[in-house]
Amino acid sequence: MGPSDHAFSEHERTALYRAIFERRDIRRFRPEPLPAATVARILNAAHHAPSVGFMQPWDFIVVRDPAVRERIHAAFLRANAEARERFEGERGQHYAALKLEGIRESAINVCVTCDRDRFGPVVLGRTCQPDMDLYSTVCAVQNLWLAARAEGIGVGWVSIIHADELARLLALPPRVVPVAYLCLGYVEQFPPEPELQTAGWLPRLPLRQVVRYDTWNGPAGARWNELEREVEEL
Amino acid sequence: MGPSDHAFSEHERTALYRAIFERRDIRRFRPEPLPAATVARILNAAHHAPSVGFMQPWDFIVVRDPAVRERIHAAFLRANAEARERFEGERGQHYAALKLEGIRESAINVCVTCDRDRFGPVVLGRTCQPDMDLYSTVCAVQNLWLAARAEGIGVGWVSIIHADELARLLALPPRVVPVAYLCLGYVEQFPPEPELQTAGWLPRLPLRQVVRYDTWNGPAGARWNELEREVEEL
Repeated sequence: MGPSDHAFSEHERTALYRAIFERRDIRRFRPEPLPAATVARILNAAHHAPSVGFMQPWDFIVVRDPAVRERIHAAFLRANAEARERFEGERGQHYAALKLEGIRESAINVCVTCDRDRFGPVVLGRTCQPDMDLYSTVCAVQNLWLAARAEGIGVGWVSIIHADELARLLALPPRVVPVAYLCLGYVEQFPPEPELQTAGWLPRLPLRQVVRYDTWNGPAGARWNELEREVEEL
Repeated sequence: MGPSDHAFSEHERTALYRAIFERRDIRRFRPEPLPAATVARILNAAHHAPSVGFMQPWDFIVVRDPAVRERIHAAFLRANAEARERFEGERGQHYAALKLEGIRESAINVCVTCDRDRFGPVVLGRTCQPDMDLYSTVCAVQNLWLAARAEGIGVGWVSIIHADELARLLALPPRVVPVAYLCLGYVEQFPPEPELQTAGWLPRLPLRQVVRYDTWNGPAGARWNELEREVEEL
């Protein structure tokens, strides 16, 4: 066996990279419902995320009830009014003009939660990094997001909402925290680049600016020439 | 346009799900080096993760220097000795027998960090959930992990190490925190299931046990029959 014999075919790799590059944070949805089989596949993809000590700390609360969503939307509005005040002048006007959620008009919402006590208090791999369970839950969110993209379904992450309000509205027990509140639905389009990039809110950083060598200020130098050159080209 | 016209082809979807289901946490590596072009593609996949307010808070420190890795391995050994004491009796013996890292024998290590102050202190979408930048960084880790799997490269996340030691050894500035310390390299095999599952450490939960309806204790009932049935089958 050669070392790279476990690599996927070029077609398969291209499909994965397509999901990664064409995934978007979506705030505009079409009204059609999502097939149950598709939603189940997406949730199963999320459930196969890595988790610290294999603790699988996540739950997926699928929210369709319009009354629950109306209350969550109201909590978003309150948090967003506070948030807007943090941006001054032109930035504040720009902020106010952005559409930042699709809670009511998406087909379903999914709250991804983390049970901080699943399988008991001592978890392998979490003894000196207690937030590893939260990070595992975020890995599940990213799996869900990529699977949804491949199924032609848009996902938007609503982070402008207070976690304690969300916990109350969804009746979470004290040991369970909400990590992500997601809106899912079909879309008119997946924009070619992130909306905040198109809107001129912030630019995409060049890859070379976020790759470092051996330490934070490690000099690249001769040993790294080849990787530096490849990074430069992307 | 029909609602699902943005869905990938069945072949493409299968490839994405293959990456998700065959990804593993790897602690055993082959010695061959990784091609620079492949490493650059994997880092670029990570760089295309979602990020709150498009702040792209991540950096990727690629560590090859054996001296740096030796010091990080020593920090792992110290943390692991503390961790082992948390598991009693048989569980402690089982813990001690597990291989939990491949810091020195993998081809490269990559520390994925989060710059908590990138683009300034006020970030869109992070005003009431300040850890959204950490979560964005974890999304980058999961992209990296899936891209590596498709390239036939194993990834292991070393969480048994103190963040402050890691920060010191990699000379991180105070505003930058380490989120994930990863080992990357070719492998003999990607095991058919997670090692902790095979080793009998913990079982995989059935999907139905982690899917909930409308609220934490929401009754499923008639409205949810179809999704419940699909979830049951996975």
